[in-house]
Amino acid sequence: MPEIPFQRVAIVGLGLMGGSVAKALRAAGYAGRIRAALADAAAVGALQESAETWQVELSPVLPDVLADADLILLATPPRVMLGQLEDIARWADAAALVTDIASTKNTIAGRATALLGARFVGGHPVVGSEMTGFHAAREDLYRGAQVVLTPLPSQTDAQAVEKLRQFWVALGAEVREMSPEAHDEALAATSHAPHLLAYLYMAGLEERLPGLEDLAGGGLRDFSRIVDSNPALWSEILLENQQAVRQQLQQVQHNLQLAEQLLAVEDAAGLQSWLSLGKTVRQQFHFPPVSA
Amino acid sequence: MPEIPFQRVAIVGLGLMGGSVAKALRAAGYAGRIRAALADAAAVGALQESAETWQVELSPVLPDVLADADLILLATPPRVMLGQLEDIARWADAAALVTDIASTKNTIAGRATALLGARFVGGHPVVGSEMTGFHAAREDLYRGAQVVLTPLPSQTDAQAVEKLRQFWVALGAEVREMSPEAHDEALAATSHAPHLLAYLYMAGLEERLPGLEDLAGGGLRDFSRIVDSNPALWSEILLENQQAVRQQLQQVQHNLQLAEQLLAVEDAAGLQSWLSLGKTVRQQFHFPPVSA
Repeated sequence: MPEIPFQRVAIVGLGLMGGSVAKALRAAGYAGRIRAALADAAAVGALQESAETWQVELSPVLPDVLADADLILLATPPRVMLGQLEDIARWADAAALVTDIASTKNTIAGRATALLGARFVGGHPVVGSEMTGFHAAREDLYRGAQVVLTPLPSQTDAQAVEKLRQFWVALGAEVREMSPEAHDEALAATSHAPHLLAYLYMAGLEERLPGLEDLAGGGLRDFSRIVDSNPALWSEILLENQQAVRQQLQQVQHNLQLAEQLLAVEDAAGLQSWLSLGKTVRQQFHFPPVSA
Repeated sequence: MPEIPFQRVAIVGLGLMGGSVAKALRAAGYAGRIRAALADAAAVGALQESAETWQVELSPVLPDVLADADLILLATPPRVMLGQLEDIARWADAAALVTDIASTKNTIAGRATALLGARFVGGHPVVGSEMTGFHAAREDLYRGAQVVLTPLPSQTDAQAVEKLRQFWVALGAEVREMSPEAHDEALAATSHAPHLLAYLYMAGLEERLPGLEDLAGGGLRDFSRIVDSNPALWSEILLENQQAVRQQLQQVQHNLQLAEQLLAVEDAAGLQSWLSLGKTVRQQFHFPPVSA
């Protein structure tokens, strides 16, 4: 089993993503300390029992959680995370490696590096779920997952990147490096724009209710599963990455116009070859298995 | 167990939908005859063995399959079905009830009623799968499914509608009646437009390959599952229902513009309330369970 190169892990925010890191660490045989910072005493109380099962110490006091940690993992929603960076920089041990799991990287990488220097390494595990919270967290969430690390050239410490790579590999993930900009453009295409499309599609059906509720099959169910995600979180993600998302939406607009024209002139051959292209493109993706 | 009010069922086209009717009939204890018409001798040869398991007689000769059948179920792709109607009318027993399973109803209802008269009752089970063929057909495909019947006022025989309702109820479905026009508008919204959106979204990612294949999670996987469907079949469905589909696409275009504006001015509250609306609308749908 690959070694986990940390002994005292601090997780800020113990939701689906942070919680799954804690559970995956224990499942991988990690015997070191895990502390998690929660928003307040009520949140601590609600999770106390299940956190004990996983040997995770909870606290609402950020400095206590960060004290002498050698890995600090930021796992709060994007805007919360940005607001916490100054506190993190104030209370983190000078030797601690700091990373995050946010699904947009450009803003966080710049601000965190400015505050924390070479020991901040941005990261994004390309997984998720419409489920939320520690109870939904899974010890196998990162098994086989792609984790993107986004070090800044000539700024981020190469040894820190290597240690973080080992960490994720030990949790079962595959690790790659990209620039924050390239990451955000890619994720706009593979995740953020599809979320927005599915959300606005369902919102657009409002005026057709009641009437349609029983007339949808598995197609619309799966197309719109991501609409069951947290709107507050997704609003933040979309705004963080609004430039790349808008570019992606403009391409969709353009293609919608082409599709309307093909339908209007009843161009069966053109339409079918376009649908076939979509199917061929999809077959080149390596999606996680359906259980994930 | 509800009685199946037919003794000699003919199924034209033994793919996922027609095949599932055959299997569901046997699973429901139906002991009568089932014959199925296939395109040619090669198709008959390929399915012979598994058809025998389900006591389904196969033939490439349409008149043989239709001879003295009291229920004729048309289950070929939409354009093939339209092309077969004259032959069906020529060879069908004068007392046979004729129905279909096509997911667009306007064109077929008009043409079939013109040729077959009051004993044609259009139908559409609102189920499906990206799977195709008799081997993928399931005896429980219609259990809990909505089946829409689309009789024409003052044209379709009311007793025929009632018998067909009994038939589908015996296979586990819930049955409702709608006009062909209302059906096609509803299905444009709940199925056809989402299929087109997902297809064109994936086609639009072509220029980003290679590069994105490993950077997609379960969100894009499920959003685009329907893109694994048959492009030839979906091209036909979209063209059959092109007017309602285009109206739906125009609404999507309009909403995409609004979304772009919200992103451009970084209207977090507006964006979040729109996403929340999408989630609320989705929760009002009664989707089939994920196993279906």
